[in-house]
Amino acid sequence: MAGNTFGNLFKVSTFGESHGKAIGGVIDGCPAGIELDVAAIQNELDRRKPGQSAIVTQRKEPDEVEFFSGLFEGKTTGTPIGFAIHNTNQKSHDYTHIKDSYRPSHADYVYDQKYGFRDYRGGGRSSARETASRVVAGAIAKQFLQGIEINAFVSQVGNMRLDKSYNELDLSLTESNPVRCPDPETAAKMESYIKEVRKEGDTIGGVITCVAKNVPVGLGEPVFDKLHAELGKAMLSINAVKGFEYGSGFEGVKMKGSDHNDKFNSDGTTQTNYSGGIQGGISNGMDIYFNIAFKPVATVIQGYETIDKEGNKVQAQGKGRHDPCVVPRAVPIVEAMTALVLADYMLLNRTIKK
Amino acid sequence: MAGNTFGNLFKVSTFGESHGKAIGGVIDGCPAGIELDVAAIQNELDRRKPGQSAIVTQRKEPDEVEFFSGLFEGKTTGTPIGFAIHNTNQKSHDYTHIKDSYRPSHADYVYDQKYGFRDYRGGGRSSARETASRVVAGAIAKQFLQGIEINAFVSQVGNMRLDKSYNELDLSLTESNPVRCPDPETAAKMESYIKEVRKEGDTIGGVITCVAKNVPVGLGEPVFDKLHAELGKAMLSINAVKGFEYGSGFEGVKMKGSDHNDKFNSDGTTQTNYSGGIQGGISNGMDIYFNIAFKPVATVIQGYETIDKEGNKVQAQGKGRHDPCVVPRAVPIVEAMTALVLADYMLLNRTIKK
Amino acid sequence: MAGNTFGNLFKVSTFGESHGKAIGGVIDGCPAGIELDVAAIQNELDRRKPGQSAIVTQRKEPDEVEFFSGLFEGKTTGTPIGFAIHNTNQKSHDYTHIKDSYRPSHADYVYDQKYGFRDYRGGGRSSARETASRVVAGAIAKQFLQGIEINAFVSQVGNMRLDKSYNELDLSLTESNPVRCPDPETAAKMESYIKEVRKEGDTIGGVITCVAKNVPVGLGEPVFDKLHAELGKAMLSINAVKGFEYGSGFEGVKMKGSDHNDKFNSDGTTQTNYSGGIQGGISNGMDIYFNIAFKPVATVIQGYETIDKEGNKVQAQGKGRHDPCVVPRAVPIVEAMTALVLADYMLLNRTIKK
Amino acid sequence: MAGNTFGNLFKVSTFGESHGKAIGGVIDGCPAGIELDVAAIQNELDRRKPGQSAIVTQRKEPDEVEFFSGLFEGKTTGTPIGFAIHNTNQKSHDYTHIKDSYRPSHADYVYDQKYGFRDYRGGGRSSARETASRVVAGAIAKQFLQGIEINAFVSQVGNMRLDKSYNELDLSLTESNPVRCPDPETAAKMESYIKEVRKEGDTIGGVITCVAKNVPVGLGEPVFDKLHAELGKAMLSINAVKGFEYGSGFEGVKMKGSDHNDKFNSDGTTQTNYSGGIQGGISNGMDIYFNIAFKPVATVIQGYETIDKEGNKVQAQGKGRHDPCVVPRAVPIVEAMTALVLADYMLLNRTIKK
Repeated sequence: MAGNTFGNLFKVSTFGESHGKAIGGVIDGCPAGIELDVAAIQNELDRRKPGQSAIVTQRKEPDEVEFFSGLFEGKTTGTPIGFAIHNTNQKSHDYTHIKDSYRPSHADYVYDQKYGFRDYRGGGRSSARETASRVVAGAIAKQFLQGIEINAFVSQVGNMRLDKSYNELDLSLTESNPVRCPDPETAAKMESYIKEVRKEGDTIGGVITCVAKNVPVGLGEPVFDKLHAELGKAMLSINAVKGFEYGSGFEGVKMKGSDHNDKFNSDGTTQTNYSGGIQGGISNGMDIYFNIAFKPVATVIQGYETIDKEGNKVQAQGKGRHDPCVVPRAVPIVEAMTALVLADYMLLNRTIKK
Repeated sequence: MAGNTFGNLFKVSTFGESHGKAIGGVIDGCPAGIELDVAAIQNELDRRKPGQSAIVTQRKEPDEVEFFSGLFEGKTTGTPIGFAIHNTNQKSHDYTHIKDSYRPSHADYVYDQKYGFRDYRGGGRSSARETASRVVAGAIAKQFLQGIEINAFVSQVGNMRLDKSYNELDLSLTESNPVRCPDPETAAKMESYIKEVRKEGDTIGGVITCVAKNVPVGLGEPVFDKLHAELGKAMLSINAVKGFEYGSGFEGVKMKGSDHNDKFNSDGTTQTNYSGGIQGGISNGMDIYFNIAFKPVATVIQGYETIDKEGNKVQAQGKGRHDPCVVPRAVPIVEAMTALVLADYMLLNRTIKK
Repeated sequence: MAGNTFGNLFKVSTFGESHGKAIGGVIDGCPAGIELDVAAIQNELDRRKPGQSAIVTQRKEPDEVEFFSGLFEGKTTGTPIGFAIHNTNQKSHDYTHIKDSYRPSHADYVYDQKYGFRDYRGGGRSSARETASRVVAGAIAKQFLQGIEINAFVSQVGNMRLDKSYNELDLSLTESNPVRCPDPETAAKMESYIKEVRKEGDTIGGVITCVAKNVPVGLGEPVFDKLHAELGKAMLSINAVKGFEYGSGFEGVKMKGSDHNDKFNSDGTTQTNYSGGIQGGISNGMDIYFNIAFKPVATVIQGYETIDKEGNKVQAQGKGRHDPCVVPRAVPIVEAMTALVLADYMLLNRTIKK
Repeated sequence: MAGNTFGNLFKVSTFGESHGKAIGGVIDGCPAGIELDVAAIQNELDRRKPGQSAIVTQRKEPDEVEFFSGLFEGKTTGTPIGFAIHNTNQKSHDYTHIKDSYRPSHADYVYDQKYGFRDYRGGGRSSARETASRVVAGAIAKQFLQGIEINAFVSQVGNMRLDKSYNELDLSLTESNPVRCPDPETAAKMESYIKEVRKEGDTIGGVITCVAKNVPVGLGEPVFDKLHAELGKAMLSINAVKGFEYGSGFEGVKMKGSDHNDKFNSDGTTQTNYSGGIQGGISNGMDIYFNIAFKPVATVIQGYETIDKEGNKVQAQGKGRHDPCVVPRAVPIVEAMTALVLADYMLLNRTIKK
């Protein structure tokens, strides 16, 4: 309720600030008897971690997860899975320059107003570092969701937009480049562009597309907890996200009903998929796909003017090692949140028939 | 949890099918001592009801709300507010033609698969009729939120897009035309277009923009329950919605950080508002604004091919009285859901400081 | 959260005051496809209703339930079940004598303090009339729980205690007398005693014992939501309840572990059942049994001294038609709450294994 | 929902098994700006820890809490407080003797049935070791509840019952003896008795009484979340608890209404307090007091007969270092759960008036 828990039946509660001792969480409701591949979990963390390529922040954090409970002889026990990722590279002195001023378009100002109090060491709780805990939980959810494939990839950086639908792409190429765009040619252009932007001391936004295949028919709860509503919330809860659309999305508003309606095949599948795999808030067995808009990272290395706590104008400058573009590292986070949503609905779906 | 409840502290649970006896709900957590203007609630229902203009469905339903509890001598008592809207115009015979077939891009097929069972009288629970209950709850939330102004309006129909930002519009003109577009000239064009589409027996999508002014600083809960995440979920839970963006939205991904960052004035307000009034998931006191994409209504009056329960191809045709474009009637629903989200966070905000 | 909802997966939200237009509720999460016996639901309401015998309040209320939604062709649809019981006999003038004073050991004073406001028409929301909605929901839960038998009965009135365990009684005799004590001889004595107490214008407390048979092994969630913890909460939420014990209860504290431990038979059943069918918070397949203590009804017909809103001493006198002893009418309420708890855990249990 | 979270606004989620790496939890919703006395938290843990006296288990565990997050410069930040208590003394080899058999009146059998799986190292999640996490959370809640005094003490061991009400006792003496009974004479007798029972290789039950003073008027939510209902659930969720009663409790059923009703003084306090400080589920400002029944610990050192997984009869014997009587160490747990309940309602109470 205070906002640090996601899910109902497959539920994760996270804790931790960017410059505290550790971040971590508790996963409650993960079914018993799942053989956990811990290396696969660590692999997801590695996809998210800083320092993995030349176009992301050069901070070094090993981001190793330590499990405290919920596992026995390699399997989940049905009891809560407690875990932590220790912060090894806190460098809080990097942040003394911002102790007394609010960074524009960061959460500094609103945290101070909301809590009457501010942890000025980096973003504190508002830092995207928290999402490492989500990646752990999502990686476990993925293992529960055996058979369902979830693949996210970068489909836009700044004005550079991938002009192919996910159907026309070989998604196995996503990890072949540091941008995580499955079209190698476009990926190369995006990479150059991101480097250019970084050289300017600036940042740029992007779009991630996510596809979930083999989702069974029937996930999603009318009327408030529609599947896409919960997916939308999950994505919008990721740092820097400004928009979510699924299926035909914002383009679909221009279409007429006679074109937009997905005609049935005799097996219940549809000939087109403007619906994005969801009708009336419930999965229909077709591919679920959606786009997520990420704004440019707020921390720019250029100098800027801002205010201090008393409202005085001050000159400031971004320091530290930041991402020039957030989308490459956000790909595993998007997949993790998708897995968490689907796992929750899979469990809920077991309860609905006589 | 089964999906028919929205909110935590200001909470509404709704019930009812389009062709049952009544729809309605229970509002729990509305603070005590609010003088309720019942006429204002009915007025919101009238903005949503069918038959109000030439460009919406011509069904006639009075949609009068009956309150059962929670009010005493004109004030809320702090106890749950139970209410119902009786269905006076059920005409379930209109729907026998669809009893044995699934309408494309409707919820028919997925409900049958999910529940092993289908209420074939119109949309049943998946009908947008349910949103009348949300309008009642939202109208009460609006009265609780005294001082906060929430205004939604139609900003796009098909390809016709209002080329002005909400700042440049006189939002008091929204109710001056049946489209609910505050620019009279554009409204007239949209109206003609919708009539044309209807003549074709077809439907068209649209976009609603919503603005909330005077929202206090501090609403929104890190990390999962960010204000815009919950707003997004609320909007995506409305029938026919395909996308949500706030502040700079999908356009913002093309911007650089140095341009996108909202510079502070010395009073904590910002010079620009790409953030859309929300930073780090918490309101910053600036205007909150967002766009919602609605697909074209699935029920078209043209003939179409579909399948029956056994997967046989059948010819069918939409009957009944349906909306050619859903956005004019969805405006009060968007406002209602916005009010419900804000009311919930207002109450939660009272709990966060020592 | 505001307290008017019970359950998570099989969830009921109730509304209504004793002297408002109607009471009722919404049941959300009841599985689809259950053939509902509406007469059986009404029968449970009749067991609770006033005026059914000489030893209960002589108010006349038909207490007929009207269903608004969630049923189609006699079966549950998986959508929320909305219902109301209209208040036909409000007689709010009966209560003007208490408008300005607080009745001792009633909720009058605390409601006024809590809400800054008071509905002085009888108990308002604090009246046990609300429990009629629970009985409706519980009767539906009972039908979902096919095979599980839930039987409550009166085991004590004042000092008169039934000296037999539930095993030694023929529980089919519970409904054979107005006290709802399955031992006819004791029932007759209790009945005379209650009449005597009523003649004095006084009231008396009692104990209800409840037994649930054929509960499957495995219901209950460690660690906070232990089965008996939720049963305890459910019972303590019933008006006038002061205590709850299960299995060996308060007597068990006097025993030694070597005597109290329930030895296993080879089929996993146990030779004794001090555990009360629950070990570690989880049902073990043995009978679940528990006792619930009810205080004497606070409304006495004798004159008494109390205070008004300004704290002045005033003389007052109970009027109206009240129960001299609450336990006979509380039997179906106890069964209803038991059924609601078990239904919730039955659904939850479907989610716990791989 | 899976049962490892307690509270709504002041919420704790716990994790950890008795023989895993660590136990711990996440506290979400603790208001910002509270100066935390960490030594006081450790002190509560010390009151619960094993090895503290001759009449409790002689296991040695330091039970030191490590905080990961949620604190900054000595104050709570409003963000989640993550913490762990590392298990230093796991000795899982102590338990190999029970790997293949079910201990009577333990949770072994039901866990295996429920999860299809069993962590045979001691109690695993069902061990009372989990309550150490509750004590941490409760100690923080206590600091939030400044001004409210919560005191629990042992009032009965076996047949030895303290014959004084809490009013007649000097509760500051509770910690003066290892039994935690504030009457030194009775305490001495209880201590001898517990030693005697231990010498027999047996165990004995007991009762804890808890008193909360200076609770403000108005805590508790009608109708399901009555204050005493939630207190009851909290207490019943503690290991080995079999019963809960508040105010007049089970004795009160024998009283007549005219005696049981608590007459008002002109300041709203009452002359008697059979209500136990709660009317209609809402605190009335008087002392809240309640009793909790604990069964004798199931692990006896005597030999016993039981069954293995295949249902074969086997001879077994309790090993290890166990408590002959659980109540002395349960006193801080009872206080902790009381504090958690009150903290939750204190926060909720801020939301109820206009």
